[in-house]
Amino acid sequence: MADKIRVTIWNEYLHELEDDTVEAIYPNGIHQTIAEGIGRHGNFEVTTATLNEPEHGLSEQVLQATDVLIWWGHKAHAQVSEEVVDRAQQQILSGMGLVVLHSGHFSKLFKRILGTNCSLKWREADEKERLWNLEPSHPIMEGIPDYFELEQEEMYGERFDIPTPDKLLMISWFQGGEVFRSACTWQQGHGKVFYFRPGHETYPTYHNDYVVRIIANACKWSRRRVDLPNQEALQVEAIEPVPNPGKEHIV
Amino acid sequence: MADKIRVTIWNEYLHELEDDTVEAIYPNGIHQTIAEGIGRHGNFEVTTATLNEPEHGLSEQVLQATDVLIWWGHKAHAQVSEEVVDRAQQQILSGMGLVVLHSGHFSKLFKRILGTNCSLKWREADEKERLWNLEPSHPIMEGIPDYFELEQEEMYGERFDIPTPDKLLMISWFQGGEVFRSACTWQQGHGKVFYFRPGHETYPTYHNDYVVRIIANACKWSRRRVDLPNQEALQVEAIEPVPNPGKEHIV
Amino acid sequence: MADKIRVTIWNEYLHELEDDTVEAIYPNGIHQTIAEGIGRHGNFEVTTATLNEPEHGLSEQVLQATDVLIWWGHKAHAQVSEEVVDRAQQQILSGMGLVVLHSGHFSKLFKRILGTNCSLKWREADEKERLWNLEPSHPIMEGIPDYFELEQEEMYGERFDIPTPDKLLMISWFQGGEVFRSACTWQQGHGKVFYFRPGHETYPTYHNDYVVRIIANACKWSRRRVDLPNQEALQVEAIEPVPNPGKEHIV
Amino acid sequence: MADKIRVTIWNEYLHELEDDTVEAIYPNGIHQTIAEGIGRHGNFEVTTATLNEPEHGLSEQVLQATDVLIWWGHKAHAQVSEEVVDRAQQQILSGMGLVVLHSGHFSKLFKRILGTNCSLKWREADEKERLWNLEPSHPIMEGIPDYFELEQEEMYGERFDIPTPDKLLMISWFQGGEVFRSACTWQQGHGKVFYFRPGHETYPTYHNDYVVRIIANACKWSRRRVDLPNQEALQVEAIEPVPNPGKEHIV
Repeated sequence: MADKIRVTIWNEYLHELEDDTVEAIYPNGIHQTIAEGIGRHGNFEVTTATLNEPEHGLSEQVLQATDVLIWWGHKAHAQVSEEVVDRAQQQILSGMGLVVLHSGHFSKLFKRILGTNCSLKWREADEKERLWNLEPSHPIMEGIPDYFELEQEEMYGERFDIPTPDKLLMISWFQGGEVFRSACTWQQGHGKVFYFRPGHETYPTYHNDYVVRIIANACKWSRRRVDLPNQEALQVEAIEPVPNPGKEHIV
Repeated sequence: MADKIRVTIWNEYLHELEDDTVEAIYPNGIHQTIAEGIGRHGNFEVTTATLNEPEHGLSEQVLQATDVLIWWGHKAHAQVSEEVVDRAQQQILSGMGLVVLHSGHFSKLFKRILGTNCSLKWREADEKERLWNLEPSHPIMEGIPDYFELEQEEMYGERFDIPTPDKLLMISWFQGGEVFRSACTWQQGHGKVFYFRPGHETYPTYHNDYVVRIIANACKWSRRRVDLPNQEALQVEAIEPVPNPGKEHIV
Repeated sequence: MADKIRVTIWNEYLHELEDDTVEAIYPNGIHQTIAEGIGRHGNFEVTTATLNEPEHGLSEQVLQATDVLIWWGHKAHAQVSEEVVDRAQQQILSGMGLVVLHSGHFSKLFKRILGTNCSLKWREADEKERLWNLEPSHPIMEGIPDYFELEQEEMYGERFDIPTPDKLLMISWFQGGEVFRSACTWQQGHGKVFYFRPGHETYPTYHNDYVVRIIANACKWSRRRVDLPNQEALQVEAIEPVPNPGKEHIV
Repeated sequence: MADKIRVTIWNEYLHELEDDTVEAIYPNGIHQTIAEGIGRHGNFEVTTATLNEPEHGLSEQVLQATDVLIWWGHKAHAQVSEEVVDRAQQQILSGMGLVVLHSGHFSKLFKRILGTNCSLKWREADEKERLWNLEPSHPIMEGIPDYFELEQEEMYGERFDIPTPDKLLMISWFQGGEVFRSACTWQQGHGKVFYFRPGHETYPTYHNDYVVRIIANACKWSRRRVDLPNQEALQVEAIEPVPNPGKEHIV
């Protein structure tokens, strides 16, 4: 495996340019804040890519050189081209990691790789979120306490329309009375997929050190394994039968 | 399958005899209230059994004639004999359903059938519990709305030390700030196992119609299938090899 | 739930019209043989649909009136329109069952609903397949012995690129030395999905009674539940905090 | 995490002392051959322990200093004390890895940690086993080709009475016509559990380099994480309600 994990952070990058509140929190874009944050928790070679770049910044070449793709999108999911979604899906199935954040739940790529609608309930009421750690021994939870809080966040509530996660790492409690499966893992093909709920653009969530630590841990967990052997079409020899297999036994 | 589902409700039956508060809520024992409750939601042939009966009321004969065993216990887990636990475990692995309620999480039988410690956090603070329905299309959730509330309950909090459930059906939100995986399914051997959180003895939880409906649904879901074939020690014939299997292809 | 399960059998229906060998085995098409076969094992209201019908015979109206969609395709996957795939996917996520047969593993719909490439190894060598029953108590295995054999079938070998199945019901042994996960279940959204391997068009596989019994059982298992409640946007009331939650305990 | 993985190899160590055939293959015991084998594939600090040592060589002190416990047993499962089984189970739930080999499937410890009977079919007919690799990107399969063969082994056949594995890594094809889930992973508590089928005492299986490589990989995968935080009983503060949560939305 390469020494440095090559992370590509994809951000829609529209809210920050259009809304003063968001710009004040993320003056260089959510992607830059995440890049700085995960840099405090690991040895990453970070690239960023945004919607308005050619091919959304995700050419075949870029994706092949990506060990983990982080995805933040919200209001322009429909503008992401099918071709880029196809391409990213194939890279994931071949081993590239995928870390989907917050409103990325409704991105074409997340819905494509999981096969479900990924719908949920939501509410903006400046309410407190408390995230409980269900799997303290999982590598994505390294350094995370029993719970931590975000003073204000958008609420996401169940039913979250996802396939049953392989592992459910965190459940969120919201002040208004809802719960949510906030940190979930899956494997699809040879790729590891992680969804992490927090991160509404009007709150300083990606300045929270627990939040970026979890994202950094997820990059380490989901990184592409470069030594994956290709599946081969084998020439298989005929095998002689056992002369007398005899009776089975049961224990 | 038999027409009527044969349910055996096991209750420790100590709190009701020793504590006036509990007696006032469950004058004939928690087991009788559950028996009446599930009777409103299905066609069950109900038997009850308690700790102080010979063999805790769970002879080999009783268990063989049981399609689903419901379990409520709390303060006397240690008094349940290993022999009865062994016997019940074998019946579950052979196809008997098991529905474990509330403090039964810490029973010998539940820990035995799952292999983990089944520990959790708890607090008695007369707080509200709101249970969210994650799987409205699962048969155990039939007739259950998006959520329902219990005005006062004991709090159970994560981390609940259980194997990842096959299906997580409900998550509880507690007024004091905790969350809990409150309705979980597993299969062990040929037996279906369901855990359902609510039911502290000092609250009238088993008089709640949603609660008993879920228990009734779980009995239908986990019922023993009486036509299960036994595994046989087979006499297997030698199979000639394919003369020339040739090369594999890959799609 | 409706009394009769409404099954729509979709067949590409090209081999039977173009190849004498296949026509001899399935003179009215694979779909008709499957229709007759499952009719011996259940109370189904069967409709058929084929590629060359308008909208491939799968209009919105047809799918809404379908409890289970069976899918057989092979050489013309690319001709199935994206619109029909979208439509069928949404019906599955809303609760319609899906039973995918043999080379349907590579259909657009199966890949869409699972999110993976569903690739595998294959070989045509007229070899024997022996299918082992791993879950005799699962409803799809009702009436199926420990194993059964198909004298000649196409070989499918691992690695089969699918998400880990919820339940693996059968594994195939092939005479030439390969193995395959031949009967797999998943849930996606509210829909139950079943894949069943056997059924190459040049062999009389769908005349085998075990094969059609499994398909019939799968229709019963995956049938749409018509009483599924819609998820609602709720008006949630503020909940007062617990005055003094106090300290948690751990057991 | 410690630099060297501390592995304790437990072997019943009876066959080698009582049977000339077995002694000829494993003159210093199966445990020594495994110790040498895994040493070629990793940096392990290996200790061995056997049935006839005091406490079977598995004192509390030994287990606390063990990152991964490997288990081989066959004819004397009943002689293993309940106390040692309890102790090892608690260490696994706290994070110690467990690698169970071949006939260890029927050990008290494996049945305890999984909760099922772990029964299976078997036959001794000197037949060929071909093991197929289903998950080439899983760390336990590192360096393992699409398949490898063992010229002669004991046959194990399904149904193997285990909980559905988290990941199924290999399926065995046997010359006599059976199949078996040969390499399976689970998590129980904070411990990772791996079962690997091959290793009958009358064959030189643990001299096969693929076999010991898989065991070495499994030790790396399942190693205890020493920095696991203890769960704490928290003092939780009251949380004020959201003044006006308002209506939920659905996407």
